[in-house]
Amino acid sequence: MGDLIGVAVSGTLYYVPEYEFERVLKVSDSPVIRTKLFAALCRINTLYMIARAGSGHIGSSFSSMEIMSWIQLNEVQGAEKNAEAVFFSSKGHDAPGYYSTLIGTGKLDFDFIHKLRRLGGLPGHPDINTPGIITNTGSLGMGVSKAKGIIFANRFRKTFKPVYVLTGDGELQEGQFWESLVSASNDCLHELVVVIDHNKLQSDTLVSKVSDLGDLSAKLTAFGFKVFRIDGNDMSALADCISQAKEIKDKPKVIIADTIKGKGVSFMEHTSIDSDIENYKFHSGAPTEDMYISAVQELIDSANLLLDNAESEKLHLEIIVRPFVNPALNPPKLLVQAYSKSLLEEAGLYTNLVALDADLILDTGLIPFQKQFPERFIECGIAEQDMVSRAGTLALNGLLPVVHSFSCFLTTRPLEQIYNNSTELSKIIYVGSLAGVVPAGPGHSHQSVHDVSFMATMTNMQCVEPVSETQVKQTFSWAVSTGNQHSVYIRLASVPVESTEIINALPLPPKGEGSLVTEGADAIVFVTSAVLTIEVIKAVELLKKKGIAVSVAVMPWLNALSADWVVSTLGNHTQVFIVENHDKANAFGTFLMTQLCLNGLSENRKFHHFGITGVPACGRIDEVLAFHQLDAASLAENISKSLNA
Amino acid sequence: MGDLIGVAVSGTLYYVPEYEFERVLKVSDSPVIRTKLFAALCRINTLYMIARAGSGHIGSSFSSMEIMSWIQLNEVQGAEKNAEAVFFSSKGHDAPGYYSTLIGTGKLDFDFIHKLRRLGGLPGHPDINTPGIITNTGSLGMGVSKAKGIIFANRFRKTFKPVYVLTGDGELQEGQFWESLVSASNDCLHELVVVIDHNKLQSDTLVSKVSDLGDLSAKLTAFGFKVFRIDGNDMSALADCISQAKEIKDKPKVIIADTIKGKGVSFMEHTSIDSDIENYKFHSGAPTEDMYISAVQELIDSANLLLDNAESEKLHLEIIVRPFVNPALNPPKLLVQAYSKSLLEEAGLYTNLVALDADLILDTGLIPFQKQFPERFIECGIAEQDMVSRAGTLALNGLLPVVHSFSCFLTTRPLEQIYNNSTELSKIIYVGSLAGVVPAGPGHSHQSVHDVSFMATMTNMQCVEPVSETQVKQTFSWAVSTGNQHSVYIRLASVPVESTEIINALPLPPKGEGSLVTEGADAIVFVTSAVLTIEVIKAVELLKKKGIAVSVAVMPWLNALSADWVVSTLGNHTQVFIVENHDKANAFGTFLMTQLCLNGLSENRKFHHFGITGVPACGRIDEVLAFHQLDAASLAENISKSLNA
Repeated sequence: MGDLIGVAVSGTLYYVPEYEFERVLKVSDSPVIRTKLFAALCRINTLYMIARAGSGHIGSSFSSMEIMSWIQLNEVQGAEKNAEAVFFSSKGHDAPGYYSTLIGTGKLDFDFIHKLRRLGGLPGHPDINTPGIITNTGSLGMGVSKAKGIIFANRFRKTFKPVYVLTGDGELQEGQFWESLVSASNDCLHELVVVIDHNKLQSDTLVSKVSDLGDLSAKLTAFGFKVFRIDGNDMSALADCISQAKEIKDKPKVIIADTIKGKGVSFMEHTSIDSDIENYKFHSGAPTEDMYISAVQELIDSANLLLDNAESEKLHLEIIVRPFVNPALNPPKLLVQAYSKSLLEEAGLYTNLVALDADLILDTGLIPFQKQFPERFIECGIAEQDMVSRAGTLALNGLLPVVHSFSCFLTTRPLEQIYNNSTELSKIIYVGSLAGVVPAGPGHSHQSVHDVSFMATMTNMQCVEPVSETQVKQTFSWAVSTGNQHSVYIRLASVPVESTEIINALPLPPKGEGSLVTEGADAIVFVTSAVLTIEVIKAVELLKKKGIAVSVAVMPWLNALSADWVVSTLGNHTQVFIVENHDKANAFGTFLMTQLCLNGLSENRKFHHFGITGVPACGRIDEVLAFHQLDAASLAENISKSLNA
Repeated sequence: MGDLIGVAVSGTLYYVPEYEFERVLKVSDSPVIRTKLFAALCRINTLYMIARAGSGHIGSSFSSMEIMSWIQLNEVQGAEKNAEAVFFSSKGHDAPGYYSTLIGTGKLDFDFIHKLRRLGGLPGHPDINTPGIITNTGSLGMGVSKAKGIIFANRFRKTFKPVYVLTGDGELQEGQFWESLVSASNDCLHELVVVIDHNKLQSDTLVSKVSDLGDLSAKLTAFGFKVFRIDGNDMSALADCISQAKEIKDKPKVIIADTIKGKGVSFMEHTSIDSDIENYKFHSGAPTEDMYISAVQELIDSANLLLDNAESEKLHLEIIVRPFVNPALNPPKLLVQAYSKSLLEEAGLYTNLVALDADLILDTGLIPFQKQFPERFIECGIAEQDMVSRAGTLALNGLLPVVHSFSCFLTTRPLEQIYNNSTELSKIIYVGSLAGVVPAGPGHSHQSVHDVSFMATMTNMQCVEPVSETQVKQTFSWAVSTGNQHSVYIRLASVPVESTEIINALPLPPKGEGSLVTEGADAIVFVTSAVLTIEVIKAVELLKKKGIAVSVAVMPWLNALSADWVVSTLGNHTQVFIVENHDKANAFGTFLMTQLCLNGLSENRKFHHFGITGVPACGRIDEVLAFHQLDAASLAENISKSLNA
């Protein structure tokens, strides 16, 4: 589920235009040749989309390209409503590949090719607002369950069309996958065809190293499925296998498609890399400019070779020249890196500290810990429920577990397990990265804007969102210290935070207090999160120009409030603004207002609450902050409006 | 996971006293005979505990009695800290059986035998505050994960003692079980011995009818376990099997113990019942008085026969005479029954309504629907994640899914799936029963006091807690109506609600409004839930005697508020009380105070918030309401105190 934030490739980018798809699809009558050509073109466009967006999953889009192309061209025909079959990807991070097939067949407007991970464009993970997408995916393990819902609805209307679900292989580590197989077999859902894109690599490294799948065929057979196993990048084998699978009418089927991650570009193919492969570079993120050029050349050559074999003329490509972007003078800070360092330091002090991971060592900053303390590192695979329950008994047996994942996964999938742990009043540190509405490129499966609602209600759970490197260090140091008996949820932004003096200097204030970073008489703003602190500070500058002077308090403690501190900080302010990187329901703002009410501090004040409402938008950071009116300009305007109202 | 609220048995109850355990454990040198005798005595005490408590799981306690007795007497020896092995039950609802073994071996004070499901006594599901309990269980599927945490901690300290985990068979429907097996095999955790109490029946009916497990041995073998299969009520077979299992040092082991649910009492044994068994009566709840007498007689006879065979004297029993309780004149109302009726009516109107269940048809009121609309009933088994993801695509494909479970499970286990559905903005009705802090007998795994925090933050999710039969009907009718586009979470109490005139007459007020049921000038109380409405109304009477007149507004809409209504209802009230059947963090109270702040209605008012703080207590309804100071007397006292402060 990794989702690195990369940089868009500058220079010349190449894509296959609409008319070339039309031409190439007429080159051969052979479905296999035709689909191979189609896949070759789609790879070029997939690479274009990811290079332009600066982020996206190349490896998985390429490994499954033959599968998606075959199903798109030969199984799922015509318009969606009357489709002869249904297809969706459960893993969802192969979305750029899938989009390229939808664009290549004209099911999706060609212009979308330029809009991957942009507002109003194509989200990093599939969303039903995109034509051709039939359900939202990107949270792993849900695919077969979703397919069963579709099949039930179809049967309810007496139709029995095939439902193809593409899954990852790392995805099979999620318990829901196995949970969902049972009734598919018991109910003889022969319409169900699960295709496993078995590319052997998950977010971190080889599936076999993260959490080996064992004898997959034996497992799937034991669960009552008819199992096929083929080379999933061999179009003829795929065509034959799907044809055979369709003949079976007494049980659900699964095709284990052995594929190569990054297939199509030699240096991106995992098989081309040393067998001690660690942290494969093309799971997510964009290639460098040099890599892009080599990769696209190879893809163009391959497509031309296929065209040549089919006695057709070479590919005509269109280009877009992207401007070169100067690297920032003050490189932005990554709080996850600060966390990584802090974890290492504290692990040196606390020899009972163990770190648990769910296939995100890179994104959660665990690599240095894993290298230095391998005996205290527990890789759980994409199995968050298992991870959290393990942490529970580790804590009861004298260890200090620190549990990691993206916030969106950590606070939802294993919530009953977190609750169960909380009833034992043991001490567990939960560290969620990728918290908040941005980065918004991956889409809402990865945007965590409800996590505080879930975590802050747990017994004995202190939620903290540090906004500076210093605060990260001090938060973690406090959390692990023997003086602290709470379980702690640390909410970490994964977007680069501008390195401003104000932010850099911010230490962690005492529990329940915030940091007053500017002072002004007209209003006070309580803000959470590094990202929005930056925006608010910029908004303050904009407001100054309008003659409005605003105090700003940065609030890392999300569910603790010192009455003394807040009394003195509020002072005579009658206009109180709350800005948070979270849904407005049930988070810091509601906590603050409630505490003010209960402490008799709400009198004679006007409150204004800015945060997320509705489904978080997908797009570039600046676009999405503006969409939710959380960028500096919107904040300044709305604060000014409220004060003049 | 069913947890019927029963009635304590009156009349004479029998139990085996401490000195008889001491005597009987010396009767034979043969471990098998000794343990058989021990199990026979423990069954009598288990039945006593459940009959006295009026609730508890007989069937599962009896099916696993040989397993628990053998492990308790022969594997887990001595004091806990130096134990040669570790044991816990993952399913947890066999707790009365397990407690009886702890009491029988003197690891737990004998007096606890009288305190099942009582405040300060033994919770309905295991809790670490009870000596001999090493982790909190009762939320299914977590056992193997927890065992792995224990084994990691042991290995960290270079010890390798066996860890026995008892699971149910229905429990294997939870995805986490399969998720957790993978690393146990990959890491060769030979210390792990999973014992499956395969009694063939889960909460609702036969496992094979709910969600058949298929070829269990093949599945477990494919997952890398050494599999044994034995008669789990045969003590010799158990002894042999465990001895063999301990010899295996290269992989984890699982013993499929075929057992008989209700074993030991002929009419409680599932095998004695017609093969068309539906809704086995002894999963949870207490027996009737007649049944108790027959059952205990049979258990005593069996024990005496064993003693006779061992040439020892007959059992000496102690008795307790429990008073006869007159049935209430106004029988209390069960909102779940009203829901059940309403579901049937609406299903008649909306032919696209489908109901999904996770092995709780009885407790969630689904039996009439299942009988009348079998083609629209989807039994998912104990697989909440699968259920919710299925509901997602059902909704996207033209059906109206109504998803059922206990609130504690429904809003936690599948939370990421609920979030995923919410991002599709489709309409799904979630109905959670057993909501709130009571009944409190089952313990905190089953007490749902955080669910509103989780659900009210979801996009497009309206949360409603009806307090009367009329409100239940009107809530559901509104929820399914085509006029409503929201997903809805209906929070249903499962405790009997006193049938008062005020409550009975309450219709569902318009969205965002409450019902003013009494008026008084000194304060206003906003209350949620049927249970606490009753307590608050009683508190008002108590306050009247002190000369304090209080208005009460009953609030079914948990995250909607009409500004006009609240302005006129608040009137000149300066003292505002909020009473809710939920943790105080992030629920109705915080919502209300936030809305008042944002609408400028908090000025010149004092707020007081009563609800749950900390881990919910376990015990009888009256005890637990008093413990959390939510009973009428505490409420009256605290309101009076606050007004005089």
